[in-house]
Amino acid sequence: MCGIFAYVNHCTPRPRKHILQTLVNGLKRLEYRGYDSAGLAVDGGSNATPTIDTKNNNNPSAHIVMIKQKGKVKNLDEKIYKNQELDFEVEFGTHVGIAHTRWATHGVPNAVNSHPQRSDKDNEFVVVHNGIMTNYKTIKTLLEGHGYEFESETDTEVVAKLIKYLWDNKENDDVSFSTLVERVIQQIEGAFAFVFKSRHYPGQCIATRRGSPLLIGIRSESKITTDSIPIYYSSAMKPTLERTESRSEVVTQDAEGGIEFYFASDASAIIEHTNRVIYLEDDDVAAVVKGGLSIHRIKRGNVNESGARVITSLQMEMAQIMKGEFSSFMQKEIFEQPESVVNTMRGRVLWDERRIHLGGLADHITEIRRCRRIIIIACGTSYHSAIATRQLLEELTELPVMVELASDFLDRSTPIFRDDVCFFISQSGETADTLMALQYCKNHGALTVGVTNTVGSTISRMTDCGVHINAGPEIGVASTKAYTSQFVALVMFAMMMCEDRYSKRQRYDEIFDALKALPDLIKEVLSLDQEIVNLSEQLHKHKSLLVMGRGYNFATCLEGALKIKEITYMHSEGIMAGELKHGPLALVDSDMPVLMIIVKDQVFGKCQNALQQVVARHGRPIIICDKEDQESPKCASHVLRIPQTVDCLQGILTVIPLQLLSYHMAVMKGLDVDFPRNLAKSVTVE
Amino acid sequence: MCGIFAYVNHCTPRPRKHILQTLVNGLKRLEYRGYDSAGLAVDGGSNATPTIDTKNNNNPSAHIVMIKQKGKVKNLDEKIYKNQELDFEVEFGTHVGIAHTRWATHGVPNAVNSHPQRSDKDNEFVVVHNGIMTNYKTIKTLLEGHGYEFESETDTEVVAKLIKYLWDNKENDDVSFSTLVERVIQQIEGAFAFVFKSRHYPGQCIATRRGSPLLIGIRSESKITTDSIPIYYSSAMKPTLERTESRSEVVTQDAEGGIEFYFASDASAIIEHTNRVIYLEDDDVAAVVKGGLSIHRIKRGNVNESGARVITSLQMEMAQIMKGEFSSFMQKEIFEQPESVVNTMRGRVLWDERRIHLGGLADHITEIRRCRRIIIIACGTSYHSAIATRQLLEELTELPVMVELASDFLDRSTPIFRDDVCFFISQSGETADTLMALQYCKNHGALTVGVTNTVGSTISRMTDCGVHINAGPEIGVASTKAYTSQFVALVMFAMMMCEDRYSKRQRYDEIFDALKALPDLIKEVLSLDQEIVNLSEQLHKHKSLLVMGRGYNFATCLEGALKIKEITYMHSEGIMAGELKHGPLALVDSDMPVLMIIVKDQVFGKCQNALQQVVARHGRPIIICDKEDQESPKCASHVLRIPQTVDCLQGILTVIPLQLLSYHMAVMKGLDVDFPRNLAKSVTVE
Repeated sequence: MCGIFAYVNHCTPRPRKHILQTLVNGLKRLEYRGYDSAGLAVDGGSNATPTIDTKNNNNPSAHIVMIKQKGKVKNLDEKIYKNQELDFEVEFGTHVGIAHTRWATHGVPNAVNSHPQRSDKDNEFVVVHNGIMTNYKTIKTLLEGHGYEFESETDTEVVAKLIKYLWDNKENDDVSFSTLVERVIQQIEGAFAFVFKSRHYPGQCIATRRGSPLLIGIRSESKITTDSIPIYYSSAMKPTLERTESRSEVVTQDAEGGIEFYFASDASAIIEHTNRVIYLEDDDVAAVVKGGLSIHRIKRGNVNESGARVITSLQMEMAQIMKGEFSSFMQKEIFEQPESVVNTMRGRVLWDERRIHLGGLADHITEIRRCRRIIIIACGTSYHSAIATRQLLEELTELPVMVELASDFLDRSTPIFRDDVCFFISQSGETADTLMALQYCKNHGALTVGVTNTVGSTISRMTDCGVHINAGPEIGVASTKAYTSQFVALVMFAMMMCEDRYSKRQRYDEIFDALKALPDLIKEVLSLDQEIVNLSEQLHKHKSLLVMGRGYNFATCLEGALKIKEITYMHSEGIMAGELKHGPLALVDSDMPVLMIIVKDQVFGKCQNALQQVVARHGRPIIICDKEDQESPKCASHVLRIPQTVDCLQGILTVIPLQLLSYHMAVMKGLDVDFPRNLAKSVTVE
Repeated sequence: MCGIFAYVNHCTPRPRKHILQTLVNGLKRLEYRGYDSAGLAVDGGSNATPTIDTKNNNNPSAHIVMIKQKGKVKNLDEKIYKNQELDFEVEFGTHVGIAHTRWATHGVPNAVNSHPQRSDKDNEFVVVHNGIMTNYKTIKTLLEGHGYEFESETDTEVVAKLIKYLWDNKENDDVSFSTLVERVIQQIEGAFAFVFKSRHYPGQCIATRRGSPLLIGIRSESKITTDSIPIYYSSAMKPTLERTESRSEVVTQDAEGGIEFYFASDASAIIEHTNRVIYLEDDDVAAVVKGGLSIHRIKRGNVNESGARVITSLQMEMAQIMKGEFSSFMQKEIFEQPESVVNTMRGRVLWDERRIHLGGLADHITEIRRCRRIIIIACGTSYHSAIATRQLLEELTELPVMVELASDFLDRSTPIFRDDVCFFISQSGETADTLMALQYCKNHGALTVGVTNTVGSTISRMTDCGVHINAGPEIGVASTKAYTSQFVALVMFAMMMCEDRYSKRQRYDEIFDALKALPDLIKEVLSLDQEIVNLSEQLHKHKSLLVMGRGYNFATCLEGALKIKEITYMHSEGIMAGELKHGPLALVDSDMPVLMIIVKDQVFGKCQNALQQVVARHGRPIIICDKEDQESPKCASHVLRIPQTVDCLQGILTVIPLQLLSYHMAVMKGLDVDFPRNLAKSVTVE
């Protein structure tokens, strides 16, 4: 998840200072989407009116300047004004500027890996990207074969080089910028939103998306000619016609009036400039040429497909937009989970080949398969994701799997050996205890594996190999989508460990199919939202809550209880249902709120026993159970019915109602959901 | 811990039925001390007036009959009346009957291992025993060398055979019964209370004790001649004088009146007959000869030693006596801990040799040392004892040590290998989940080790080897003394594992010395009782309590919180202090009661950090800390100062205040401490 921003002013003279400020402000609005590094590209020189009609423009005054800086947008802003060569006062009648704030997915956060990425040292093509390309290595190899040299570790650079390659090998000089981009995206797999700028097409800006969001804001003093933009299907017309034809139906300004375009990952960066926006759909290619906006697609899809993109009016406040339709980042992140788990799997679950390919582990998987023991070390929510997947890891690897709290692991000076493989899970990749445990394990010669959400974080740098969960930045202090993505990442690892085992094949296939169905099932669980609001109304005034379960769903009890603790300040505790009779059952009476997780897996019968024990003590538990379960609800005060999936993934579906429950209870108690008292997002001290 | 009862009627004719009923009733009062099996010995035949003066009485009518039965006293009672050969109506003017209810320590509960134990097939000498002999194997080997054949697995049988050996090899025919017993106890190491009966000394009864309790009740219609009994020191007089001399100062009845004596492990079995009792001291030998009671000692100890035993009056109710000075078994068991940990160490910690010898593991220790991994499997409190000692086990064995909840272990079908050693901890030895885990590990070929408080329990029978913790029967449902004894047993195991490691020697010595000092330190902690009453008054009305700590004392947090849950029904939770910032800290404010354990060990600094975090959030924690700690108390609302010991044993001292706290809070809430709602002592179902 990154933030893209671009600004085009046509026939609207603006000093360079204004252009840079607009770009930087846009990035600041988008900073919650990532803050590893930031960068932008603008026209260089002092030629305020570049000759827009000249093909193969090698006018040095039209060269593109890139400024990039590691860290937050503020750092970039400071760097811009240290640039001695730029004349900040010079005015541009027409200009294209693109900018980016990054949440690293490939390559550590530094200037070289920052966006925009460029085609070559002369910056002929520059591009900003939000998303993850999954086949970039193949294309990179191909282009390297043709002599293109790469300077960064990013997937994005491939796109800049690829468009240069297509330009270098174009069939004729009339090929349009949008056609080049269309050809580029036909080669790309994965999720993306791109905005391109090129010295070969001065004044032109091309944007496209698939999977990642992108919208375009339009501002003009004069009236805009149309309320919707019909789509051009490239496959339906001769390429030579395309450029002239497309120009005839762009959104144009009245007469000679100026127009400005704003491209952004979300509306928060646009609303301060205009409320008239177009949301791009997957595979739309939007082109601004000579101040006109046209939208292109390769070919028409199904008949119901809309043949035009409507210009809509934004009616929202800024904060609202940043959080979308949500009242807090945490809520937003809970509802992002159908997408974030897809992003975790993107490029790793090879659906057609029915294979799992974790690129970050590929070089070490043989060594990992040979180990004597797997040890997973983490804190808080990350620790729970290890608990949740431990059983599957044990089943598929047939190795001893130990799960350790980093602080306790260090306190105990746990024995570690050279044939151990140690996993370190941390959303931020900077958790202090986990980091120290990593250092400890390195000193003992173990192979170390990182599982983080933050490329370039200390854990991802210090480990021998790892998995980046690609959940996108998580702003809410209480972790939600990172948990489910860590969960999925560890499941993928377990599957990769056994892919060559014939005896595990049936199990593998079962999980593989369940991964495919997972995003839709998550959506189904999220649709319980209103029911959970009702439940929260009953529950939020209680002081205590016991969350009980066992087997694959015990981790859900721990994690659910932690969420409730963190943001509602209610004393909730996750209880292993198998331990009930060894003590906790004494707490149960008709007053103590109890929530039980009972799904149809191997421990269903045992969970039913626990349920009967609770009921016998006059407990009236809230039950999270399978949709089909007829029995358990009979004893319940409240039932949340969730869809069924394979046992080892069920924990993803059972934890989401608890995320929602904690969220709604906190809201009802009037608490700040995103910033619970006493806590910080990333615990970088012991 | 067993129950001893004996009944002597002198010149007080009683039918056999009455004698048997008196013995059985006595046992029933003592049944809380053990209920594995019961047995008794009375005179056989129908000779109501055996010739008490005849030496070497081989009159078959004076033979001794033993009746023994596995299980509760009720079973014994039923068995007695099935005996066709006894005439229940025949009267005995003078008679000695001894009886026993057993808590197995050596040998499974069955009839052969039940007491009384006998010298030979003719029952020449019979004895009942409460306690644990530590050198019985040496004596057994010696006696076997002399041709004595053993029939049981008990330590007690050695005593019966030994007195027969001394009788067979006596220097002259005048040797008294009490002299024989004096010689026996000079050979014995360990704790004991004995009562002897012999066909060679009809009408005589000899009792003695060391470590285990024993008292004598006296009932007579006529006046008793004295209020105290002076002690005879055998070393101070010629043996030949002894018997006649001693007779001159016994407690005698007025003129020809009858007298009855009751010997018992505690007053509960005596109070219904008489309130006049004598408490024996260690190494006292009490002899009833011709209706007169005398007390003998080998030699006078220090000058302050009392030269007499006073006859005191019991002023207590029956229930009171059973629980001693305590209001509940739980409280009694908490206060028994200075003794119960000694019993756990008795014969295992060889103080002079500075060695640890766990007899039950001796045959397997080499195999255990060779293992790849130690896995400890348990439920509830037993699980916490494994958490408490895991770090030391890791340190001293340098092996991976995994600690597993039995239910979760089974749910996960955890991988187990032939080179694993699996420990199963259970007070009762019958915990269902732990048993099933044991079966699972046996099926996978692992070496299995039991740690139980119950000899002959399923776990002690099914495991390859094991440690019996010898804590004595635990009646309170909430386990207290079993926890500390399990703790000590596992520490002893860890030490035994490394006894040959030169590099561990210093550490070994440190722990060895600390074990020696432990009982006194426990007493010191128990003296905090009144302070804890005050604390309980503040605390018992709260709904929640967080118990925080880390390192060696994390287990104390879990166990303390469990105690509070179990008997006060307050929602308490043990929290790893290292995890505070990952969530639980959100719960902390000025209203939430927090208890922190902070002792001067390796994590003292980190605990101080946690303390500062809690204080910064306006928490005013209750602190359990070292006596010398000047810093921590500054931030506390209440301080409990405990003595310092070696880090790995500190958990025994920190858990006791929490046991007391839970106890006092439960009493203040008016709850039944020994029988908390919803719970049972031994969880024998899944």
